[in-house]
Amino acid sequence: MKRRLLFIGTGAAIATVLLAAPAMAQDGSSVDALQATLDNIWILIAAVLVIFMQAGFALVEAGLTRAKSVANIMMKNLMDFSAGVLAFAFTGFAIAFGSGNDFFGTEGWFLNANHFSEGYFGTLSLPTFFIFQVAFAATAATIVSGAMAERTKFKSYFVYSFALTAIIYPIVVHWLWGGGWLAKLGTPMIDFAGSTIVHSVGGWAALAGAIVLGPRIGKYDKDGKPRAIPGHSIPFAIIGVFILFIGWFGFNPGSQLAADSAVPAIALTTLLAGTAGGVAATVTVWLKTGVPDVAMAGNGVLAGLVGITAGTANVSNWGAFIIGALAGVLVVYSVFFIDRRGVDDPVGAISVHGVCGAFGTLMVGLFATETGLFYGGGLSQLWSQLVGVVSVFIFVTVAAGALFYGIKATIGLRVPPEEEIEGLDVVEHGAPGYGPDTTALV
Amino acid sequence: MKRRLLFIGTGAAIATVLLAAPAMAQDGSSVDALQATLDNIWILIAAVLVIFMQAGFALVEAGLTRAKSVANIMMKNLMDFSAGVLAFAFTGFAIAFGSGNDFFGTEGWFLNANHFSEGYFGTLSLPTFFIFQVAFAATAATIVSGAMAERTKFKSYFVYSFALTAIIYPIVVHWLWGGGWLAKLGTPMIDFAGSTIVHSVGGWAALAGAIVLGPRIGKYDKDGKPRAIPGHSIPFAIIGVFILFIGWFGFNPGSQLAADSAVPAIALTTLLAGTAGGVAATVTVWLKTGVPDVAMAGNGVLAGLVGITAGTANVSNWGAFIIGALAGVLVVYSVFFIDRRGVDDPVGAISVHGVCGAFGTLMVGLFATETGLFYGGGLSQLWSQLVGVVSVFIFVTVAAGALFYGIKATIGLRVPPEEEIEGLDVVEHGAPGYGPDTTALV
Amino acid sequence: MKRRLLFIGTGAAIATVLLAAPAMAQDGSSVDALQATLDNIWILIAAVLVIFMQAGFALVEAGLTRAKSVANIMMKNLMDFSAGVLAFAFTGFAIAFGSGNDFFGTEGWFLNANHFSEGYFGTLSLPTFFIFQVAFAATAATIVSGAMAERTKFKSYFVYSFALTAIIYPIVVHWLWGGGWLAKLGTPMIDFAGSTIVHSVGGWAALAGAIVLGPRIGKYDKDGKPRAIPGHSIPFAIIGVFILFIGWFGFNPGSQLAADSAVPAIALTTLLAGTAGGVAATVTVWLKTGVPDVAMAGNGVLAGLVGITAGTANVSNWGAFIIGALAGVLVVYSVFFIDRRGVDDPVGAISVHGVCGAFGTLMVGLFATETGLFYGGGLSQLWSQLVGVVSVFIFVTVAAGALFYGIKATIGLRVPPEEEIEGLDVVEHGAPGYGPDTTALV
Repeated sequence: MKRRLLFIGTGAAIATVLLAAPAMAQDGSSVDALQATLDNIWILIAAVLVIFMQAGFALVEAGLTRAKSVANIMMKNLMDFSAGVLAFAFTGFAIAFGSGNDFFGTEGWFLNANHFSEGYFGTLSLPTFFIFQVAFAATAATIVSGAMAERTKFKSYFVYSFALTAIIYPIVVHWLWGGGWLAKLGTPMIDFAGSTIVHSVGGWAALAGAIVLGPRIGKYDKDGKPRAIPGHSIPFAIIGVFILFIGWFGFNPGSQLAADSAVPAIALTTLLAGTAGGVAATVTVWLKTGVPDVAMAGNGVLAGLVGITAGTANVSNWGAFIIGALAGVLVVYSVFFIDRRGVDDPVGAISVHGVCGAFGTLMVGLFATETGLFYGGGLSQLWSQLVGVVSVFIFVTVAAGALFYGIKATIGLRVPPEEEIEGLDVVEHGAPGYGPDTTALV
Repeated sequence: MKRRLLFIGTGAAIATVLLAAPAMAQDGSSVDALQATLDNIWILIAAVLVIFMQAGFALVEAGLTRAKSVANIMMKNLMDFSAGVLAFAFTGFAIAFGSGNDFFGTEGWFLNANHFSEGYFGTLSLPTFFIFQVAFAATAATIVSGAMAERTKFKSYFVYSFALTAIIYPIVVHWLWGGGWLAKLGTPMIDFAGSTIVHSVGGWAALAGAIVLGPRIGKYDKDGKPRAIPGHSIPFAIIGVFILFIGWFGFNPGSQLAADSAVPAIALTTLLAGTAGGVAATVTVWLKTGVPDVAMAGNGVLAGLVGITAGTANVSNWGAFIIGALAGVLVVYSVFFIDRRGVDDPVGAISVHGVCGAFGTLMVGLFATETGLFYGGGLSQLWSQLVGVVSVFIFVTVAAGALFYGIKATIGLRVPPEEEIEGLDVVEHGAPGYGPDTTALV
Repeated sequence: MKRRLLFIGTGAAIATVLLAAPAMAQDGSSVDALQATLDNIWILIAAVLVIFMQAGFALVEAGLTRAKSVANIMMKNLMDFSAGVLAFAFTGFAIAFGSGNDFFGTEGWFLNANHFSEGYFGTLSLPTFFIFQVAFAATAATIVSGAMAERTKFKSYFVYSFALTAIIYPIVVHWLWGGGWLAKLGTPMIDFAGSTIVHSVGGWAALAGAIVLGPRIGKYDKDGKPRAIPGHSIPFAIIGVFILFIGWFGFNPGSQLAADSAVPAIALTTLLAGTAGGVAATVTVWLKTGVPDVAMAGNGVLAGLVGITAGTANVSNWGAFIIGALAGVLVVYSVFFIDRRGVDDPVGAISVHGVCGAFGTLMVGLFATETGLFYGGGLSQLWSQLVGVVSVFIFVTVAAGALFYGIKATIGLRVPPEEEIEGLDVVEHGAPGYGPDTTALV
C-alpha cells in the first residue's frame, strides 16, 4: 500500500494526502484508457468467480461420495488447482495461446512477457488474461476428479492432473481460442465459453479415467447390476451447485473478455438455461423414478449451465431456455445409461460435462441466431459444431486414455482393495476427514 | 469467445490479435456510454451477490433444523430459485414492472423486449435489470421455506413457491417500485431495497404458512408450552449468515441501480446495522437467558440487515447503528413471543424478515435525514411508511393464506405424521441427506 | 430504490422512466470523475471479498478443531466481526488513519466526516476506505481466535477481540499506512497489503494468547510430547482455504486502492505465491512424514498467500513463486517446531500468520524489483523491513500479552477443565453445535 501513505507532519493538524492520484491521471487520461481499465477489472472479478468454482466442485464431489474418502477429495481439489496453476503458467498457457501452428503454440513459455506483449490480448493485460484462463484450465482438471473418486491413488491423481493442465487441455484450447484449425474452418466452430473446449475435455478425460480405473468395489452386484451408493452429504452437494452457479456468472459473461453491452445478455441466457435444467431434470427424474431426487436436480442445474456455455452469446432467451431444459432431461437419461454400462462415475461428471457439453455445442448449430439452422443459417454451422465435438472427443479419449494406461503400467492408478474399503483418508493422508468425535457429539 | 480468436498465420511468428477492440470503440465512445457500461457491470455483480444469498438461506435453514430433513431443505431452496426464475421471467416481471395500473402491470410478459425497450430502465439494460430483480424475487420466496420446514410436502412447496414468485410478490413490487399507488402517495413511501417489499412479503407469507400448517410434532408439550428443537448444525447456520451478509452488499448498494457516489455510503449503513444487530441480539439474549445463544446472534445480524434495508440510502451512520441495534433487540423478543403463541417457525423467519422488516420500514419515518420526524420532517413520512407496512401485511397474509388453504384443501400441505417423524428426506426424495457411513467414520 | 420509481400514468401505455439519469450526468461528467467512481466501486467489491474471508477463517478454525466446541468457534468469528466493526468505527479507524503523531492518530473518532473530509483518501470516499480497512481489522482479530480455540472463555474472547480491534491493531496500522514512523524511515518499509501490519499482528497476538492460556488438556503427554488432536472436519477446513484464497483477491489487489493497471499484476503474484505455497507444503510434509497431509496443504496455501502479501506489488512473478514456495516449506517446519515447544496452536495460526508474515516481509528486502538486494538495491530496504518486523513483534507481544494477563487476573481467560472436556458449546452457549440427531441419521 505504498500509495496509502499519509504523510503527516509531526503535530500538524492537516494531513497531506498523496495516495493514488498521480496514477489515476495517467491511467484515466482518456475514455479508451478507462474502458481498458474497466475491462481488466471486470475480467479479474469474473476470474475470481470462476476460481470460486473450485470450492463448488470440491463440495459437489465430496457430497456425492462417501465420508471415508472426503479428505482425499478435498486434497485433490486443492492440488489440481495449486499444481494446475503452476503447470498452466509454465507450459499450458504457451501451448494454448502462444504463437505456433494450427495445433499448438510453441512460444511464450513461463508467461514470457516479451512474447505476450502489450496488445496481444486486446485491452486485457497478460496477468488479467492469464488469471481468467488458468481458472478455466483448473475447471477442466477438476471435473475428472469426481468420476475417479474413492479409488484413485493420490500420487497418480497428482500426475495426471498436472499432465492434463500442462498439455492435453491447452492443445484443445489452441485449436479454437488460440486461433488453430477449428477457428479456421469455413464456418468457424462456435464455443463461446467452453461447452466442448472446457467441459467436454474434462468429461471425456473422466470417461477414459473411469473406464481404465474400473468401478468401485460393491458398485455392481454379481449380475453386473448397478447399486446406488448414496453420497454422504446432500447439503455439501447442493451448496456446491449454488457456488458453481455463482461461478458461472464469471465463466460465461467473463468470456466476452470485455466490459460491454453483451455481458448482461450472456448472464441472462446462463441464468435461464441453468434454472431450466434444474426444473427439467427434477420433473424427469420424478416421472421416471417416482421421487424428485435431490442430487439429480443439482446435476440438472449443472447440465443446463454446461449446455448453454457454448452458445451463451449466440442464442436468444428462448433458445437458452430450450437448450437448458433439454440438457436437464438428457442428463437424467445419460446418468442412468452410463451407470448401466458398467462405468462407475460417482458424481455424474461424464454425463454433466461430457455429454451435455457436446449436446450444448451441437445445439448452437440449431439455435445460433445468425448462423443456426432454425434461423435460416443452413447446415454449415451445425457441421462445424459436429467436427469440433467429434475431434475433441477422439483426441481427449485417446490422449487421456494413453495417459491413464501409462500411469497404470508404472506407478499404478488404483489403491489396493483393503484401502478402498477402509477409505482413502487414513491410508493416503494419515488422518480421517472427520475427526473421531464427530460421531460422539453428545 | 468469438472475440478471443487469435488469427495466427501458419508458421508465422507474429500473432495478429483482433479481440474486442472494435466493440470497445463503439461502447466507450463517450463518457456517458462508459458510465452506462459501468452501471450495468456493477449491477450485474451486485445481482450475483444477491443470488449467492440463496446458498446462505439454504445453510441457515438447514443448520437450524434437523438432519433428517436436510435434503428436502436443500431441494426446496434449489427449486424456489430454479422455478422462481422461470416464474418471474414468464409473468412476475411483467406484473411488477410492466405498464399497467396502480396495482399491477399488464404488459411485458416473457421478458418482451418490445415492451421494455432501451431506456425503460435508465442506463440499465433489460437483462441487467431483470437479473437483479429476479434475485430479489427468489429471496422473497426462499424466506417462506424456513418457517415451514420439516413438515411440508415438497409438491405443495413447489406450487406455492411458484405462485408467490409469479403473482403475489410481483404485485407488491408494482405498488412501489413499479410506480404504483405507494409511489404516488403525497409523501411516497421509502423502501429503498425492500425491508417491506421483499422481506416482509416473505415474512408474512411465512406467518400465514406456519399458521395454516401447524407446528411440528413434539414442538409443544401437552400444556402448549414450546420445547426447543435444536438445529443440527450451527456451523451451517453461521456460515449461512456470513454469506447472507456478503449478499447484502449486493442487495442494498445494488438497489441504487447505478455506479455512483451513493453506493459506498449505502454499503456502510448496511455494515453498521448488521453488526449492531448482531451485538445487540447477543447481549439481549445473554441477559435474558444467561447464555450468548449462537443461533440468536446470527438472527440478530440478519435482523439488523433486514431492518436497515428500507432506509439504507436515507439514514445517517448513527441512524443505521440505532436501527440495527434496535432490530437486534426486537428479534429476540419477537422469536420468544411467536414461539409462545403456538406458531412454530423453526428458523425465526417471521421475526427476522416480517417483524424486523416492518420495524425497519417504520424507522425510516423517524430517521430519514430529510423527511424523518427527528430531522424536522414531520409525520407525513412516518404515515406513508405505516400505510405501506399495513397494506402489505394485509394483502400478503390474505393472499398467501388463501393460497395455503387452497393447497391444503386440494393436494394437501403437510406430510403424514409418520413421514414427519422419520424425516422428509427418504420418503419425499428417496435418499437420506447424509449417507449411512457419515455416522461410522472410524 | 427511490430512483427505481417508474411513474406510470393511470391507464397510460407508455412508461416514463426517470431512474438514475440525472445523477449519472453529474457524476460522470468527466473522465476523472468516472475514474473515481470506478475506483470506489472496485474497492467496495474488494472489501466484500475481504469480508468474505471471515467465513473462510471460521471454517478453517472449525474444521481443524473438535466438534464439541464448534458453535463457540462460529460465535467467536461472528462476534469479532460484529463487535470489531463497531470498535474500529468508534476508535480504531481514528487511531489508524486520523491526524496525530508518528505513533497513533488522535482525531476523527466515530468516523467524523469533518476530519476525514473529501479528498483525504484520494479518490476514495470515507465509506469506501473505511469498509475496506475495517475488513482488514476484522482479519487481524479473527486470526487470534484459532490459536486460542477450545479453551477460552467467550466473555474474555469478546473483551480482547474488542481491545485488539479498537486499540492495538490500529496503532500498528498508523505506524505505516497512517503515515507514522515506519513510513518515515529513510527507506520506508514496504508492506503493501499487510504481511506484517495485518497478519503478523494477528499471529503475534495469537502467540501471546496461546502462551498465557496454556495448552489444551491432553495435548501433551506426561513427558511433554505433543499429541495430534485431529480436527473434526477436513472439508470445512479446505473449503475455508478456498474462500480465503478468493478473499485474498480483494485483500492484495484491493490494497492498490484504485482501479488501475497495477491491479491484475498484483492478483497474479498473489495467485502464484498461494499455489506455490500449497504445492511446496504438500511436498515438504510428504517427504517429512510419509503422507501428504491435507490440513498442512491447506496451511501451505495460506502461508504462501500471507508471505506474498507484503511484496505483492513489488516483486516479479518469479519472486512471488519463490516467496510462496519458501513460505510453504517454512510453515511445515514452523508448525512442528511450535508444537514441540509446548505452545498449543490448534490451527497453526502463529506459523501461518506470524512466522510467514514476518518471513514474507523480510523477503521484500531481497526481491523488491527496485530496492531489493537481488536487484542492486543494497541493504537499506532489507534493514527497514527488519526494523518493521521486529518492532511490530515487540509491540504486539507486549501489548497483547499485557492484555491477556490482565484478563486472566480479572475475569479469567480460560474455562474450567470439566467444561473444556465436555466442550464449550453447551456450557458457554447453552446448546451443542451439532444437534443430537446428527449422529442418528438412519
